[in-house]
Amino acid sequence: MIEVNQRSYRLPRVATVVVCVDGCEPDYIALAVAAGAMPWMKKTLHSGTALVADCVIPSFTNPNNLSIVTGASPAVHGICGNYLYDAESDSEVMMNDPKWLRAPTVLAALADAGKSIAVVTAKDKLRSLLGHRLRGICFSSEKADLATQAENGISDVLAMVQMPVPEVYSAELSEFVFVAGVKLMQTRRPDLMYLSTTDYIQHKHAPGTGQANAFYAMMDRNLAALDALGCVIALTADHGMNAKTRLDARPDVIYLQDLFDEWFGAGRTRVILPITDPYVVHHGALGSFATAYLPPDVDPLAVCARVGALREVESALTRAQAAERFELPPDRIGDVVVVSRRSTVIGTCESRHDLSALDAPLRSHGGVSEQRVPLILNRRIEGLDPQKRWRNFDAFDLALNHAQ
Amino acid sequence: MIEVNQRSYRLPRVATVVVCVDGCEPDYIALAVAAGAMPWMKKTLHSGTALVADCVIPSFTNPNNLSIVTGASPAVHGICGNYLYDAESDSEVMMNDPKWLRAPTVLAALADAGKSIAVVTAKDKLRSLLGHRLRGICFSSEKADLATQAENGISDVLAMVQMPVPEVYSAELSEFVFVAGVKLMQTRRPDLMYLSTTDYIQHKHAPGTGQANAFYAMMDRNLAALDALGCVIALTADHGMNAKTRLDARPDVIYLQDLFDEWFGAGRTRVILPITDPYVVHHGALGSFATAYLPPDVDPLAVCARVGALREVESALTRAQAAERFELPPDRIGDVVVVSRRSTVIGTCESRHDLSALDAPLRSHGGVSEQRVPLILNRRIEGLDPQKRWRNFDAFDLALNHAQ
Repeated sequence: MIEVNQRSYRLPRVATVVVCVDGCEPDYIALAVAAGAMPWMKKTLHSGTALVADCVIPSFTNPNNLSIVTGASPAVHGICGNYLYDAESDSEVMMNDPKWLRAPTVLAALADAGKSIAVVTAKDKLRSLLGHRLRGICFSSEKADLATQAENGISDVLAMVQMPVPEVYSAELSEFVFVAGVKLMQTRRPDLMYLSTTDYIQHKHAPGTGQANAFYAMMDRNLAALDALGCVIALTADHGMNAKTRLDARPDVIYLQDLFDEWFGAGRTRVILPITDPYVVHHGALGSFATAYLPPDVDPLAVCARVGALREVESALTRAQAAERFELPPDRIGDVVVVSRRSTVIGTCESRHDLSALDAPLRSHGGVSEQRVPLILNRRIEGLDPQKRWRNFDAFDLALNHAQ
Repeated sequence: MIEVNQRSYRLPRVATVVVCVDGCEPDYIALAVAAGAMPWMKKTLHSGTALVADCVIPSFTNPNNLSIVTGASPAVHGICGNYLYDAESDSEVMMNDPKWLRAPTVLAALADAGKSIAVVTAKDKLRSLLGHRLRGICFSSEKADLATQAENGISDVLAMVQMPVPEVYSAELSEFVFVAGVKLMQTRRPDLMYLSTTDYIQHKHAPGTGQANAFYAMMDRNLAALDALGCVIALTADHGMNAKTRLDARPDVIYLQDLFDEWFGAGRTRVILPITDPYVVHHGALGSFATAYLPPDVDPLAVCARVGALREVESALTRAQAAERFELPPDRIGDVVVVSRRSTVIGTCESRHDLSALDAPLRSHGGVSEQRVPLILNRRIEGLDPQKRWRNFDAFDLALNHAQ
């Protein structure tokens, strides 16, 4: 047994794979299953364990991947977005650096306990966080050609996977993760493997569409291969995904910085969009969660009341309220937190968002409306309480403590 | 000017068409527009007025059609479902009979003021309510062949429409409504026309799918034809539509009568599903709204607390709370009202729901999650407050008082 962040985990006795499918709104699976595109999944949902869980808020990639691999909320691990305002340096920075991570990962702890670990992510932005203090294999599809034994615990990845390095905006970036996972399991059989994809397809294509079903069929073939290799598989997601458009298919955006500039004066407040990362082509940095820093003479409660009354807004909370409700680190969020509704997103200033590259009606995430995610295991676990609030960061607990 | 249910309406100066598109989740329009399937709509959303409004709860067909044509909530017009428990006769009955209607319609009032009126509905179940005390034309696609001058104000409908009577479960049942509307406008030019479709397509096909886009393309052609005839058009919907399935694509149902029988004893409570009507093939009588009658020794507040804690339930309210929040007639709902979440539906007893005819993953409505509907006019109305809570039953007000 090991203990990580006050949860205990048994060491894997069987090769175990935890998969985080980026942007996997549960309907993607349901409609792909209904269309016959996921025969392995259909069988597994009946013979294994099928739960719907809540992800952490903000329903973004980094906070949730870190919750899954630490088994804890952002209040514990500290990663509450892809992007934050660092009060200490008075600058806005990416949260990719492991210096932001406040908790150890289950991955690193298993490696320390002598188990062999492999981590494959689609985008490289997650690699350094997931691989923090990890002895083992850890590389991304995006930079698979640059992987070295010294840095990534593996080299010659392209020769192993037999695929070229995919485009960063492509379904193949995720396919590469799965194919690499199968090859690793066939050749090196790690004790534990963590696979994390990217949501390029989910940002562009609704559940049940041809492109979505083709992506999930690809997933299904690779999951079936891992299953055939005898692996225990736990599959969950970092967040869901919803359409965020007006009737004319343009994004339905509330530009919060523009509004605050109008209300309180230009330059007096700072709206932060934690969805921001270098890869914004498919969502234009528009998500359903924002946080804002206010000057001392502006009352956060009054701002919450005023913002909360807007048509586009689902809830507006003070720092303390948001930290409690969403289990966030209070020192890394602003004075207020704003969550928009299922069909709306939050921007900063209209002039700062380049939406010219959006070639499909906006689909995005970040809010409570994208909190539902699948939590599926290919082993039946008896006696689970269906009324319990399952979390995506219960994946390691279920996989290691209950499914083997 | 006429006054109906404490709202004033100008008499139409231009031929006016109010369209209720059954089950028109806003995304159907956005994705059809994005796919190029609705060229008229795309133009109209820019040159006219495009709002998103709230329908009335329960988000079912009859309450909302009656709200639209009375300009009032169910608390005023009395139609709070398709189906109710009539305490007086101690029986469960359909609410199709005009005896349940407590308010006059704008349609009948305009006819009384000397205006010519035409009403075309897809299913016949709505016809007698919409046509109550109406002098004018009023018929359904479903029974178009049986329309007579005496009963419906028109005969030989099939010859006019040049289509056979459609199947009751078909897209053509709605197409017939539109084609009849265009023919009526071409040949008789009524001062006001109300067209109400059926949600067969929306129950089976998600927004953006080929079948949905084809349906909306058909709508678009007919709306363009009415526009070309010089009509003022107001388009809204009775309710939205969401997927209601588990990961394996089976309906995600909470069987509330089974649960109450277990908690309180068999036969002691009565769960009513107001979605119930004779046409349940496409939804199995499963929607996201239920009401229940309790024996005197069971405390409604305690039931609400217990039911409200269930994973599938969004809110559970006492009669008084529900009547206030949803503007419902308190004498026609039970002791508690239960609304389920976006992806779940409520049934009575598992044994009473025949789901064998469901040939696609369940999509349904009834809850707050299906409250957003389009409210579109083909005339630009200046000065509308985008932050106002617009209702689908503002359609006649906007069409008659602001768009002409």
